[in-house]
Amino acid sequence: MKVMVIGATGAIGSAVARELAQRHEVIAVGSRSGQYQVNIEEFDQVQRLFAQAGSLDAVVVAAGALHVGPLAQLAPEHFHVGLRGKLMGQVNVALAAQQYLNDGGSITLTSGVDTDHPIRGAVAASTANAGVLGFVRAAAIELPRGLRINVVSPTVLQESMSTHGPLFIGFEPIAASRVALSYARSVDGAQTGQVYKAW
Amino acid sequence: MKVMVIGATGAIGSAVARELAQRHEVIAVGSRSGQYQVNIEEFDQVQRLFAQAGSLDAVVVAAGALHVGPLAQLAPEHFHVGLRGKLMGQVNVALAAQQYLNDGGSITLTSGVDTDHPIRGAVAASTANAGVLGFVRAAAIELPRGLRINVVSPTVLQESMSTHGPLFIGFEPIAASRVALSYARSVDGAQTGQVYKAW
Ligand SMILES: NC(=O)c1ccc[n+]([C@@H]2O[C@H](COP(=O)([O-])OP(=O)(O)OC[C@H]3O[C@@H](n4cnc5c(N)ncnc54)[C@H](OP(=O)(O)O)[C@@H]3O)[C@@H](O)[C@H]2O)c1
Ligand SMILES: NC(=O)c1ccc[n+]([C@@H]2O[C@H](COP(=O)([O-])OP(=O)(O)OC[C@H]3O[C@@H](n4cnc5c(N)ncnc54)[C@H](OP(=O)(O)O)[C@@H]3O)[C@@H](O)[C@H]2O)c1
Repeated sequence: MKVMVIGATGAIGSAVARELAQRHEVIAVGSRSGQYQVNIEEFDQVQRLFAQAGSLDAVVVAAGALHVGPLAQLAPEHFHVGLRGKLMGQVNVALAAQQYLNDGGSITLTSGVDTDHPIRGAVAASTANAGVLGFVRAAAIELPRGLRINVVSPTVLQESMSTHGPLFIGFEPIAASRVALSYARSVDGAQTGQVYKAW
Repeated sequence: MKVMVIGATGAIGSAVARELAQRHEVIAVGSRSGQYQVNIEEFDQVQRLFAQAGSLDAVVVAAGALHVGPLAQLAPEHFHVGLRGKLMGQVNVALAAQQYLNDGGSITLTSGVDTDHPIRGAVAASTANAGVLGFVRAAAIELPRGLRINVVSPTVLQESMSTHGPLFIGFEPIAASRVALSYARSVDGAQTGQVYKAW
């Protein structure tokens, strides 16, 4: 298969690209890095990306900005960071993918453990991440041409403990290579509308 | 208690106001109707509303716009309707309420059955509704001063079957007066971070 990985230079995306490259041709995409560049927050850029990339069997998104900060200090703008970045960024990719992917292709998005296990400082993040789950469950029943869509919900990565650790006290960190297996289950598997919990 | 009901003239809100008025002083709010007017999509209007309304023990929101339409025809703008209306409209109310409500007060928001039971044409709606669930679960653990927050997830109302019926084939419609009981459980009860499923 030919698989586009958006966020392929990131902590998660680089492990996903490595996992998938064992069996598939991987097209690496980033905002500044990779074979193609895109800002997933801009729908026209996302459409242009798919038009340029040509025939594709799957797309994985391991990207999307979130705001972290205590509820008492949140203003609407802080929510917009994740709604524009993590949620609509990934929705933009899925909307374009439904037009461009080959029949039977798959879309795999990324959420996060905080939707199921709330943590302090993650209200705006959880709001966007939960939106992604709602989108995937609903989109799965309407996608045409045998297209599938799933979402991976990772806990904190071992590789990200230096930056994210303080937020995730008591959570067992997971190796990026293990999280990548969930993405492989989605891409190589046959299910749709699933949330793969990588924790 | 003094309870503000935003959307108090609506199909759900009017039943909620009737249920709560048996025990509490109800302040009815709408976009054009009610004792106070507000557009919940505008944070400054919401803040002004709370400043005007004075001492409050609870706020209920039974309002929030959604877009309905098939996935194949959705553009990002269609998602923004619900993200701005149903999701951020209610988040705006909660953000203001955390400052203005009396100690031990409660916030009760509204989602919808489609997050758990996806239906055709409701992708953009489910995305916003799921965001509301994520927000409530996360905000519950951070609210100060004993404030509580819950969300009611109603199925289709008997009273709304003439307009919403075609979308909800096979769903058993529920009387608004029964949905209103879930809001009463949230307002008069003691739980927080709960999703009350009214179906
Ligand atoms: N790391 C964790 O522990 C963890 C746990 C749970 C969930 N997640 C979620 O997983 C996703 C990826 O996290 P990560 O830690 O792997 O991120 P990361 O290491 O910061 O990498 C982000 C990747 O996404 C690309 N990117 C950033 N903004 C983009 C945009 N607007 N458009 C297109 N590409 C963009 C970056 O490309 P450039 O370098 O070219 O900018 C990079 O390849 C995030 O949504 C995060 O919330 C992460
Ligand atoms: N009806 C159902 O079967 C059903 C089922 C599940 C979930 N829901 C959800 O429940 C909520 C209420 O639904 P409903 O059917 O009761 O609605 P509705 O009958 O259309 O009533 C809406 C109420 O909200 C007010 N309102 C509308 N836009 C507003 C805004 N921007 N700011 C402040 N107030 C506003 C209206 O006031 P004005 O009249 O003054 O404009 C009215 O009181 C919606 O979010 C809907 O998605 C409904």
